[in-house]
Amino acid sequence: MATPTKGLVSRRQAVGAAILSPLLPAGAQAATPAPPLVMTRDALLAGLRATLDQDGILTGDAIGKRYLTRKQDDKPLAVLRPRNAAEVSAIMKLCSTARQPVVPQGGMTGLVGGGVAHRNELVISSERMNVIDGVNTADRTMTVGAGVTLKDAQDRAATLGFMVPLDFGIRKIATIGGMVSTNAGGEEVVRYGMTRESVLGLEVVLADGTIVTSLNQLIKNNAGYDLKHLFIGTEGTLGLVTRAVLRLRRRQDGAATALVAIDKPDGVPELLRHLEEELGGALTKFEIMWADYDAFVRKYCPDLKSPLGPGHTYYLVTDAVGNDAEFERERLKKVLARAKKSGVIVNAAIAKDEAERRSFWALREEAGAKFSEMGPFFGYDVSLSLADMPAFGARIKREITAALPAAQVLILGHVGDGNMHLVVAPGTPAEEAHHKCNEIIYGAIRELHGSVSAEHGIGTEKKDYLAWSRSPEEIVLMRTLKQTLDPLGILNPGKVL
Amino acid sequence: MATPTKGLVSRRQAVGAAILSPLLPAGAQAATPAPPLVMTRDALLAGLRATLDQDGILTGDAIGKRYLTRKQDDKPLAVLRPRNAAEVSAIMKLCSTARQPVVPQGGMTGLVGGGVAHRNELVISSERMNVIDGVNTADRTMTVGAGVTLKDAQDRAATLGFMVPLDFGIRKIATIGGMVSTNAGGEEVVRYGMTRESVLGLEVVLADGTIVTSLNQLIKNNAGYDLKHLFIGTEGTLGLVTRAVLRLRRRQDGAATALVAIDKPDGVPELLRHLEEELGGALTKFEIMWADYDAFVRKYCPDLKSPLGPGHTYYLVTDAVGNDAEFERERLKKVLARAKKSGVIVNAAIAKDEAERRSFWALREEAGAKFSEMGPFFGYDVSLSLADMPAFGARIKREITAALPAAQVLILGHVGDGNMHLVVAPGTPAEEAHHKCNEIIYGAIRELHGSVSAEHGIGTEKKDYLAWSRSPEEIVLMRTLKQTLDPLGILNPGKVL
Repeated sequence: MATPTKGLVSRRQAVGAAILSPLLPAGAQAATPAPPLVMTRDALLAGLRATLDQDGILTGDAIGKRYLTRKQDDKPLAVLRPRNAAEVSAIMKLCSTARQPVVPQGGMTGLVGGGVAHRNELVISSERMNVIDGVNTADRTMTVGAGVTLKDAQDRAATLGFMVPLDFGIRKIATIGGMVSTNAGGEEVVRYGMTRESVLGLEVVLADGTIVTSLNQLIKNNAGYDLKHLFIGTEGTLGLVTRAVLRLRRRQDGAATALVAIDKPDGVPELLRHLEEELGGALTKFEIMWADYDAFVRKYCPDLKSPLGPGHTYYLVTDAVGNDAEFERERLKKVLARAKKSGVIVNAAIAKDEAERRSFWALREEAGAKFSEMGPFFGYDVSLSLADMPAFGARIKREITAALPAAQVLILGHVGDGNMHLVVAPGTPAEEAHHKCNEIIYGAIRELHGSVSAEHGIGTEKKDYLAWSRSPEEIVLMRTLKQTLDPLGILNPGKVL
Repeated sequence: MATPTKGLVSRRQAVGAAILSPLLPAGAQAATPAPPLVMTRDALLAGLRATLDQDGILTGDAIGKRYLTRKQDDKPLAVLRPRNAAEVSAIMKLCSTARQPVVPQGGMTGLVGGGVAHRNELVISSERMNVIDGVNTADRTMTVGAGVTLKDAQDRAATLGFMVPLDFGIRKIATIGGMVSTNAGGEEVVRYGMTRESVLGLEVVLADGTIVTSLNQLIKNNAGYDLKHLFIGTEGTLGLVTRAVLRLRRRQDGAATALVAIDKPDGVPELLRHLEEELGGALTKFEIMWADYDAFVRKYCPDLKSPLGPGHTYYLVTDAVGNDAEFERERLKKVLARAKKSGVIVNAAIAKDEAERRSFWALREEAGAKFSEMGPFFGYDVSLSLADMPAFGARIKREITAALPAAQVLILGHVGDGNMHLVVAPGTPAEEAHHKCNEIIYGAIRELHGSVSAEHGIGTEKKDYLAWSRSPEEIVLMRTLKQTLDPLGILNPGKVL
């Protein structure tokens, strides 16, 4: 391969330049792997200081823990805290000139290392892009800055009789920008889908600083390619989300909750079928806990009282939501009575009021704070066919305890969506055990054509296993997109691919 | 710009080649606009005949009307009828070597010229890829060939207690591949979303013949970029869909239908709010007809009897679906009685049985066959804020009748989704009037930040107006994707962009 030549521009080069020039600064197309800095680091930092206000850039000791992951022993070069897309654009213009890698950060609640930034990298934090622009009540949409937390968005929607159709435990810290970038899931996916399904429009800054304003408010818009999907779930590797338009749903306050015990393996899909048939769109949550998880809760969370006896194969928590709680309770009671009579389930309890609803959900949600009682542990987030789940759970437990006799395995999941979470405490030094557990769990997922990431993403943690869930052709196509949108490789490098 | 040079490969070129080579045949990267054929047309046709079986290629008189649009006065070079992705791949390998443009065709029910193929183009028809591979009842998915009709998919799902959550009138002809490629909408979008929301996985053939098998069956899969969105709604310009995995929903048979008359402009959003609050997930359709549409139906479809009197500003048909029709009817009756009492609506009728339900829907659906009674007419498919609809409808009618005094304007739409359809019969020679109507309607949509295409797509018909709904940066990004995935410009050229 010859070195770049001046004056001798081939047709192929000219075409490439013509395609990319509106998106990239002159001369930027050629570089991968990134060539040496064309701007000194000091000049870059000076440029950034001139671009941002005093609170817009943190370095050294001013970089607090919120920008670091637990395992990390270094700090990023600086943390940038832009207030809007124009400032992000100015940052990216400087960084693309300087070939400076950047790492976008939201609430840092991710579980796969998607936001980790090392000493040669700049953090772009969304924390000051935390303004809710407004709610369009006629079209049921809300436009928010990337740094708005899920909780703040939920609260604003609720004051107007709406709901953000996304929810999970860490709602006070997780940001909308992070949720968009990771296509976050949660407990309401069975009814409303992933974050992707609730995003109508985005404002995004590309690697070269181009601002793509695509803040669509319309539910239906087939005018050309739907570009937002390039940025949803791509973990900041193709562009930086600065604002989002969310689709809201009308709030309904009549929720009923049931706790169900099941012993037979196909009881879970059978019950799901019954509930889908009877409740239709009122079925909003369908969460499962394996026996070991229930046993763990009984042992480590003695304040939580289950109305059901111990020792059943599966425990389920499910919600039906409409505008009349009493009606939803009665309907749920009828369906479950029939399921019990026909032997699909062993037993069920319906929460009599809001306080009991919360106590049922606590059985599912509050054990997380106690996992460390088992020592170091690893979390998994996989997806597979509902039909394969019982055998998969049994196999994982068998293989892990064979390999690591002191290990404990807790299993739970959003089963209505085929999503299982596994918590493995190896009971031995963690590093070596982690690799072994990965091989056992992801190996089984690979055989079953499941996904190594149902909702958490790939980040850095699961990169080695991406090819276990995706074909070579898919990965080539992902790389092609990456190369097209980030030819310098400066957007969240080393993540996903 | 110099001519292509041999031996002098710059770094920039090398990078470009490295990126694209897995996707494209050697030497294919350079060409846009397409250079002259490197294979004669006769050699190409001979190659295609050797690749396909006897029924796989049609030329000359064998090319029937189904492959042509009404206005067309030429025929494509040939029609290819591959049976699977391997055959499509072989076709695309030949066509990319020959720089031969291809036009994918499904049921040819599109309304924007997305499937029109001229004399220098090859049609790739999906009609023989019409096999339903199977239904996964545990995960509620169905895998189908691109050529399977919506009706066939619906029927297969129904035999197993499921539904395909997509529906519209031309279901017997429209194909799943065409629906995926255009992100088709329909009457159930208010509940289940567009086609995009019901697609879990795709098998796609790229411009160079690479088969990307991404037949994901999982509801949740965040393992890397979600590539299917490159091919959904991009009208065959980025790749050819050969198979799809659809997400099914449990079938519920208890449907209630109401016909409602409304006079005050904000009665429509108010009623929608009431229904969303009361019915939640049971609300599946919410369709509006303006007064002129109702008058047209009374005049031209005398067999259809409306239970409501003439002359109201809006007529609505709405469905609530659950597992108990009687319950749904009673609930709908209660909501509408309250809405009438509070002055939101003027009057309402609830269909007492399935036959009456069908007769209410006929008022909305059967007038289409009579539009030509008004002479030549143009159809529009726009999207805008629900809050802007009343004023938009009045403005369009006023401006069109001012410009074309003999014109008739009928308006209807999927209002729950912000989607309006307009039917304009100019009453004058069509060509000139068409441009005038486009300018009036799309001009208003541009001012209101609406979309020139809610669900039909851009095709060839709306290309001139794409920039009225999308920003320059969005269009540059679309072009970048097109150039990346189809550098030779052979996939459905001249469509969308």
